[in-house]
Amino acid sequence: MEPFDPTTHPHRRYNPLTNTHILVSPHRTKRPWLGQTEPAEPSNLPQYDPACYLCPGNTRAGGKVNEMYTSTVVFENDYAAVLPPPGPVTPQAAHPLLTVEPIQGGCDVVCFHPRHDLSLPTLSVSDVENIVDEWTRVYMRRGTELGIKYVQIFENKGAMMGCSNPHPHSQVWSLSTVPTLPAKELASLHNYASTAHVHSGVPTEPDGHACLLCEYVHHELSVPEDEGRIVVTNEHFVALVPWWAYWPFEIMVLPHKRHISSLVHFTVDEKHAFADIMSRVTKRYDNIFSCSFAYAMGVHQRPLPPRRDDDGMYVKDADDIAHLHVHFEPPLLRSASVRKFLAGFEVMAEPQRDLTAEQAAKTLRNCSEVHYLLAAE
Amino acid sequence: MEPFDPTTHPHRRYNPLTNTHILVSPHRTKRPWLGQTEPAEPSNLPQYDPACYLCPGNTRAGGKVNEMYTSTVVFENDYAAVLPPPGPVTPQAAHPLLTVEPIQGGCDVVCFHPRHDLSLPTLSVSDVENIVDEWTRVYMRRGTELGIKYVQIFENKGAMMGCSNPHPHSQVWSLSTVPTLPAKELASLHNYASTAHVHSGVPTEPDGHACLLCEYVHHELSVPEDEGRIVVTNEHFVALVPWWAYWPFEIMVLPHKRHISSLVHFTVDEKHAFADIMSRVTKRYDNIFSCSFAYAMGVHQRPLPPRRDDDGMYVKDADDIAHLHVHFEPPLLRSASVRKFLAGFEVMAEPQRDLTAEQAAKTLRNCSEVHYLLAAE
Ligand SMILES: [Zn+2]
Ligand SMILES: [Zn+2]
Repeated sequence: MEPFDPTTHPHRRYNPLTNTHILVSPHRTKRPWLGQTEPAEPSNLPQYDPACYLCPGNTRAGGKVNEMYTSTVVFENDYAAVLPPPGPVTPQAAHPLLTVEPIQGGCDVVCFHPRHDLSLPTLSVSDVENIVDEWTRVYMRRGTELGIKYVQIFENKGAMMGCSNPHPHSQVWSLSTVPTLPAKELASLHNYASTAHVHSGVPTEPDGHACLLCEYVHHELSVPEDEGRIVVTNEHFVALVPWWAYWPFEIMVLPHKRHISSLVHFTVDEKHAFADIMSRVTKRYDNIFSCSFAYAMGVHQRPLPPRRDDDGMYVKDADDIAHLHVHFEPPLLRSASVRKFLAGFEVMAEPQRDLTAEQAAKTLRNCSEVHYLLAAE
Repeated sequence: MEPFDPTTHPHRRYNPLTNTHILVSPHRTKRPWLGQTEPAEPSNLPQYDPACYLCPGNTRAGGKVNEMYTSTVVFENDYAAVLPPPGPVTPQAAHPLLTVEPIQGGCDVVCFHPRHDLSLPTLSVSDVENIVDEWTRVYMRRGTELGIKYVQIFENKGAMMGCSNPHPHSQVWSLSTVPTLPAKELASLHNYASTAHVHSGVPTEPDGHACLLCEYVHHELSVPEDEGRIVVTNEHFVALVPWWAYWPFEIMVLPHKRHISSLVHFTVDEKHAFADIMSRVTKRYDNIFSCSFAYAMGVHQRPLPPRRDDDGMYVKDADDIAHLHVHFEPPLLRSASVRKFLAGFEVMAEPQRDLTAEQAAKTLRNCSEVHYLLAAE
């Protein structure tokens, strides 16, 4: 038998966070593309759009008027996916296989900036720090509301992701339950802590047990850059294409120096480093195909902020196992107009990709951090 | 507290096949759509397209020429996602979190018909029976090849699903491992058999234990049609929008009279009834928005056909727990040009839908089974 070559041999990789596999077909990257292409995103947006429901001073659905904000701003989504408590009585299931659970909560919109034409990659790092501050405030406020068990911060960017408005913004959904995916990740982190050994020199979760992501990022930092999956690092954070990546240019951003379980645990330095790496990652994204790069982005961290004791110190609990990280899941594959599709095999059997994580990381490493629109000036 | 109203109150439903949840936001169906729309599928295709790599007599990638087939035809995919054995040596993992498993197998294309312009809904039921026969032959042939552990039959229909060719065809991927999703479903069926009670009058798996899908379909048949999720039934099969459906007009087709674990177990009557319901479901799909309705479709059944003993009888084994079913997962939501997008919350936290399963089933029940193109003639 031949020796294994990850750039030639079809193989499966395991995702230890979600306990699923991904099928990798690296020999197939030369397949021609004859399918649907995406319309180009508009590239010359106005700084203010009178028809935009997020621009300062404009009117939203139901007649509410946006304040004349100058930095970030937060308001409740006019079409929230969940409604505030009290919820209805939980009904009895008609059959044990037809269970139902009422859910309550709130959906907020966090505008990044008054300018309609900017986005994470074209905002300044200090603007991004303002966004991180706003996310932290919403996380604290919503995460301490009665009945809330989970807060999800996420951004949908680009028409290709179903986002109907280019005005830079993110959403925060707060729920009376921990949703499927974060619950799975937390269970995997707990399971790892109770079974795996800590490698020497690797940070651990607060009780001294092994943290899956501390161990993982530590290993990635030890791989020679050329063979590895790291895109960019700074003093506190790493951005990498995970070994088990599904989306062509998927990236995970995570702290590598210590185990940080939520936004509220950031030091001033860490917050700055986080804003810095978010800016650098999104600039590289836009530069791959010289376009505004669509993605879904989400922050995974403690389901809720930690409680504080009478001295203002954080009270330790089981959720400290969370290792804060950001997932970027962009659909583009070959050019500004050719995206990845969830084909039949993937939705019926197993996620699949052609380009390897290492090939994607190399492309991203070779991208400039000077945004193409500014480089052209 | 109010009583629970599934058409008003946000809630979560549980998917017992995949052990995941779906968030349902029924109050939100009136949200306006301002986002990306899909280009229309061509509606006047030629019966023969000289540029189509699936039409009879045409040349495929690498110079192979299609036979002048008159019914169905099977050939190996010119850009297979997996390659035939022997595979390489399984490499040692660089870290326990970076596991890799070489995978082998084969990818076949099953053309449904020589006519370029037809599809499941516009083919005759006897044409669909020919397709079922061809699927059964490929399943038997591939499923008895050395090293193959799983055979997945699926169809990708429509440019919206990344399908680049409207010529009616499906694919069959045969693999040296059981992929993530079918493995999960089989585990759920086994778990159910070992823990749940059989309800009186409900068929069971061959050892007399409870079958999750026998129980489920039996319950759905007992619900009054107006409140229920059933779209269409015939003597042997039911097509329904599952309680836990994710895609707006998702449908599951499954046998209700007895536990059937694979295509090779069909009687002649059952095969005919299966072709009949596949035809009726896809006609209703095309009629929702008077367009060729895109979808991913896949057959879940025993990973491999059963072995036969010296008398030609099937040998019982643990995989008999499989209850054959077909998943239809179509992306369209509001019109021929407005699809569902996997938004940020869904990929970061939990699948979500607005339209309830019951509302979708009602729309599908009200669709005609006379294809709109034929009705217009
Ligand atoms: Zn995560
Ligand atoms: Zn299934």
